[in-house]
Amino acid sequence: MAASFFLQMAIILLACRLVGLLAKKVGQPQVVGEMIAGVLLGPSLLGVLWPASKTEIFTQDTRRILEAGAQLGVGLYMFLVGLEFNIGHFKSRARSAACVSIAGMVVPFILGSLLVLWLQHVTGIFSPKIEYYQGALFLGASIAITAFPMLARIISERGLSGTSLGTLALAAGAIDDAAAWCVLAVVLATFGASQPLHLGPANGGITIGAEVVAIGGAVLYGVLALTIGRKLLAGFGRRAEREGGVSQAMMAVVLALFCFAAWYTDIIGVHAVFGGFILGIAMPRGLFADDLRKKIEPFAVVFLLPMFFTFSGLNTKLSVLLQPAVLVAGVVILLASIAGKGVACWAAARLNGEDNRTAMAVGTLMNARGLMELIIINIGLQKGVIGEALFSILVVMAIVTTLMATPVFELVYGRKQRSLDLPAEAEGA
Amino acid sequence: MAASFFLQMAIILLACRLVGLLAKKVGQPQVVGEMIAGVLLGPSLLGVLWPASKTEIFTQDTRRILEAGAQLGVGLYMFLVGLEFNIGHFKSRARSAACVSIAGMVVPFILGSLLVLWLQHVTGIFSPKIEYYQGALFLGASIAITAFPMLARIISERGLSGTSLGTLALAAGAIDDAAAWCVLAVVLATFGASQPLHLGPANGGITIGAEVVAIGGAVLYGVLALTIGRKLLAGFGRRAEREGGVSQAMMAVVLALFCFAAWYTDIIGVHAVFGGFILGIAMPRGLFADDLRKKIEPFAVVFLLPMFFTFSGLNTKLSVLLQPAVLVAGVVILLASIAGKGVACWAAARLNGEDNRTAMAVGTLMNARGLMELIIINIGLQKGVIGEALFSILVVMAIVTTLMATPVFELVYGRKQRSLDLPAEAEGA
Repeated sequence: MAASFFLQMAIILLACRLVGLLAKKVGQPQVVGEMIAGVLLGPSLLGVLWPASKTEIFTQDTRRILEAGAQLGVGLYMFLVGLEFNIGHFKSRARSAACVSIAGMVVPFILGSLLVLWLQHVTGIFSPKIEYYQGALFLGASIAITAFPMLARIISERGLSGTSLGTLALAAGAIDDAAAWCVLAVVLATFGASQPLHLGPANGGITIGAEVVAIGGAVLYGVLALTIGRKLLAGFGRRAEREGGVSQAMMAVVLALFCFAAWYTDIIGVHAVFGGFILGIAMPRGLFADDLRKKIEPFAVVFLLPMFFTFSGLNTKLSVLLQPAVLVAGVVILLASIAGKGVACWAAARLNGEDNRTAMAVGTLMNARGLMELIIINIGLQKGVIGEALFSILVVMAIVTTLMATPVFELVYGRKQRSLDLPAEAEGA
Repeated sequence: MAASFFLQMAIILLACRLVGLLAKKVGQPQVVGEMIAGVLLGPSLLGVLWPASKTEIFTQDTRRILEAGAQLGVGLYMFLVGLEFNIGHFKSRARSAACVSIAGMVVPFILGSLLVLWLQHVTGIFSPKIEYYQGALFLGASIAITAFPMLARIISERGLSGTSLGTLALAAGAIDDAAAWCVLAVVLATFGASQPLHLGPANGGITIGAEVVAIGGAVLYGVLALTIGRKLLAGFGRRAEREGGVSQAMMAVVLALFCFAAWYTDIIGVHAVFGGFILGIAMPRGLFADDLRKKIEPFAVVFLLPMFFTFSGLNTKLSVLLQPAVLVAGVVILLASIAGKGVACWAAARLNGEDNRTAMAVGTLMNARGLMELIIINIGLQKGVIGEALFSILVVMAIVTTLMATPVFELVYGRKQRSLDLPAEAEGA
């Protein structure tokens, strides 16, 4: 067992790195390469070229381990995203940000609602158990999600942090992502992923419905974590400043808290990633957050996330797109996603008086969905909300919208133009 | 599945931290606490107090994940030990170091050979399949092993790196550990943990015995890794110096190489830890090694190693010590271990002209076995060399000899005496 796990990991790490390298050669970020590598390792390519890979490399036994590593990886990743979450972004340019983020939510949910009227009749798109409104909310959230961490990285790497584009995109992206996750939590809650809670004696007492457990439990956790939790955790921040960093003991306590949060949010019927995300937001900032990130991120991003990309890719069957009905659905969903997010955010920014270049750049960045989309749809597949066909369509949508981001951004807001138009702003960031 | 894995990890991390904190209160290192915490989570305490813990927390499903995490943890840990391995230690004080390390190997193997004459007749000590010489070699290696990383930490924390004690203990500890691991590899190889290799057509061709595959394969790997491998890897070192650190791409390649090495050494029939250890030695030093350590160590030590301590603890049944024959064997093995390692190294140091205080300190440090002992005996149990009774005895031996180290070291070589006797040497370190 140990040997096959190590072989599997070696292949995964090399595949992700190789495709990532090719992606970089054509000016794409590493994450695009890893998303594609995961798909290639699954039944869409490796499974076709070498059918025995399913039993020789990705055995049933090691797949469990892959799943656990993938869950841990995305949970820690969402924790790190929460740690990066900066409420300060909301304060400046509040009006523009509010408009862009509202457009980036309302339009996807309208499109989602309309599409599901049709899609609920296409086989393999949704689980037969699902209600219309659940399907509409799930598809809306899938279209509304933004690769917030990728957006934040592009903005910081290009020195745009202080510019109007940077502030606007960061604020709108953060609001939209938080909202999309909340909607997903509601879908999971109403879908009855959790058990009803019975209080009192077996014959008598009261029973609390699964939805109430999920939503009530999630709200309770969020409120406690962000009030009392944040206060209690602030002590870690002061201690880290005093000791010059995060000690092993502090890191162990943080990881134990993370595991408790992931466990709790999982059993109430929302998902482990919410627990990690909210805990990340509740953590103290400054030296503590910086040092914690340095200690957790390398292993989570370099070792655990490729496990997630592969696990996700093993579930992706691009061959379903050969069915005409699925292919049509796929093309329509792809176009609706680009229009519902990218075009809507561009229009909102224009209406708020942003120049066309900035508005195009905002739309482009908001349209990239990256890893966040993969996380949301893997949860949907795992909890039985969506079927294989919609899963594979949304994997393609995630890859295409992420692939578009860098070249389109270069085109509308490239280095050269920026340095000609906004030298002071860009340099001062 | 995900939920129970997170709950299990939260409990493991908290238990290791809590017992570690108690250990620190009484002046013991964190690792002693974690070793004990692992045993307490297993059938020796938690399993007695709450028998359902076996099915409620450490389920068969999550135990697989625990095993994979534990394997990965010790593999990465041994990689880090290899990364710390400094050939430079051998050069100064070569004669004393050679004598101490020879004594620290020869005496354990003599005692092991004598004890096995008797122990092979005690039920549950060895696997019935084992030959006398294999048992003797395994017990010898278990007695000869030293907690080299702990020894290195004590020496560096107390500023003893330049002193005669520091140099002597580091060199002798490193030589003994390397030798003990080689002996273990031979035991595993001759025990037929691997498959014979058949070359040529099915009816005809030649078959290479499992021992030859194992030993030949291990030697081949070691030689290639430490010659060509080291040369090729040197490029990483130069690149890290140029780029000011280890990039994610470099880290991914190193982790992929690590996984390949672990897989290869596992399938030839030695163990994944050898692959990691040798690869660690072959890595370039300087900024590359320092930065790589900073990126791998926190997660490996804080998250993965507690999985190993717990996995090991779940296999430890202290109740076997209630059988009179096992208890007698346990006491004899414990005394033989202390005499065979601690006393032998002290005597060798004295004969080489070290003063009594230094010799006592060397004996004390060499006698601590810590995590290294747990790794060696878990391999023995997993490969079916030893039985449950000997495993539990050696867990106790590992804990007791590690517990002894700090107070005895304080007694014979405490801060106060050191600063009185060797101010220049100690300060200059």
